Amino acid sequence: MDDDQKKIEVCFSPAVFDCFHNPDAIVIVVDVLRASTAICTAFMNDVGTIIPISSANEAREYKHKGYIVAAERDGHTLDFADFGNSPFNFTSERISGKTIAYSTTNGTQAINMASSCYKVAVGSFINLRAMSNWILNEKRDVIILCAGWKNRFSLEDTILAGAIAEKLLESKSYYTECDSAHASLDLWLLAKNDIIGYIQKAAQRTRLRKNGLDDVIEFCFTRDLTDIIPVYSHGMLVKLREPVAFVN
Amino acid sequence: MDDDQKKIEVCFSPAVFDCFHNPDAIVIVVDVLRASTAICTAFMNDVGTIIPISSANEAREYKHKGYIVAAERDGHTLDFADFGNSPFNFTSERISGKTIAYSTTNGTQAINMASSCYKVAVGSFINLRAMSNWILNEKRDVIILCAGWKNRFSLEDTILAGAIAEKLLESKSYYTECDSAHASLDLWLLAKNDIIGYIQKAAQRTRLRKNGLDDVIEFCFTRDLTDIIPVYSHGMLVKLREPVAFVN
Repeated sequence: MDDDQKKIEVCFSPAVFDCFHNPDAIVIVVDVLRASTAICTAFMNDVGTIIPISSANEAREYKHKGYIVAAERDGHTLDFADFGNSPFNFTSERISGKTIAYSTTNGTQAINMASSCYKVAVGSFINLRAMSNWILNEKRDVIILCAGWKNRFSLEDTILAGAIAEKLLESKSYYTECDSAHASLDLWLLAKNDIIGYIQKAAQRTRLRKNGLDDVIEFCFTRDLTDIIPVYSHGMLVKLREPVAFVN
Repeated sequence: MDDDQKKIEVCFSPAVFDCFHNPDAIVIVVDVLRASTAICTAFMNDVGTIIPISSANEAREYKHKGYIVAAERDGHTLDFADFGNSPFNFTSERISGKTIAYSTTNGTQAINMASSCYKVAVGSFINLRAMSNWILNEKRDVIILCAGWKNRFSLEDTILAGAIAEKLLESKSYYTECDSAHASLDLWLLAKNDIIGYIQKAAQRTRLRKNGLDDVIEFCFTRDLTDIIPVYSHGMLVKLREPVAFVN
């Protein structure tokens, strides 16, 4: 590596995030099926802010306070919530200009866990190019935090981590010595020419199919639908206002 | 899957082993560089028993009690120990017929962590075929526990997990719905035709090289040098006495 190159690391589970201690790093939280894709979709549809909430009880309190609440556990919308975790729920009619309190099985906890780092952003295939370019402009170490499933490894988050790593490594201003980043990149290179085919074996793919929630698959693996970067700021997710200078 | 098929899961870090709750499963602990290879080597060289010890302090106490102690942290032999973690240290002259107290950075903790499951065995490339056949004979769910590096994912353990998974899946008596098993298998298929080449990027490969400890690399990735299965029994590792009926 060169002295001015920055480091890429990939964390496969929130349970081991502490091992990646680097408060000066940017953390990109990914939860492809479905929280991080839903958050990017909400900002495409002009949501005002999103409050990421870790516990279902806290989400219920936000409902009592009068917030619009999106909340699910294990794929199912919680009974008190206005809607659940599908990106297709976050329509302009429902959310434009509003503040949404949002709680999911894995993704929102991961966002809150990362909040002590320098910056936290939300990545998905639908903002892949913009996200990668934003990281390149930031010129900082980056940790890609895969939300996974109840602290277990997930293939869909891993291939997105690999896709981001590929773009950063191509620029030569990043390097990696992290085994999970190498593995993510190798798996992404296996998947990239037929992502939907590759992901058929993913456990979350099967869970969504069983629950009749797999209408989102094609959308969640579509690249570069938006240039929006959702970032964490003072307990909330907001749309990044800085323009992203495209490097590639 | 068929009703009588058994399940393969791969756990990438001791920190998430609790997520794989399955007390009826066999757990195969792998720590290719170097603890699990060293343990298999010790049994090839007729060690009597090995006591896996989690903490360095406890290893020191065993030394004071008069045991032969093998102990390392971060690749370096601890000052009170008789020798460290290289498989080449476990020579017949030193260990034949003896009880060794053994403590390493990652591997011995993983063995102790798994000890509440139905059976625990130690896997390495040097006993790959025998291990896979033993599992096939046991006809039970299996969790392959990668010791990793300080709770982080490691490539070398993952490709061994993939190699075991490949043999079990070929038999048709096992299936997997575990994303980390799928990833392990995909990475193994990338690596298998040139394991030494593939593993050059592994962080532990680099650590061993920096410490002048990489004379073991070729040995640690050599397949099928022994049919011995080290198994955990009452706080100790012993050589499995049952004959392994070879399925393939």
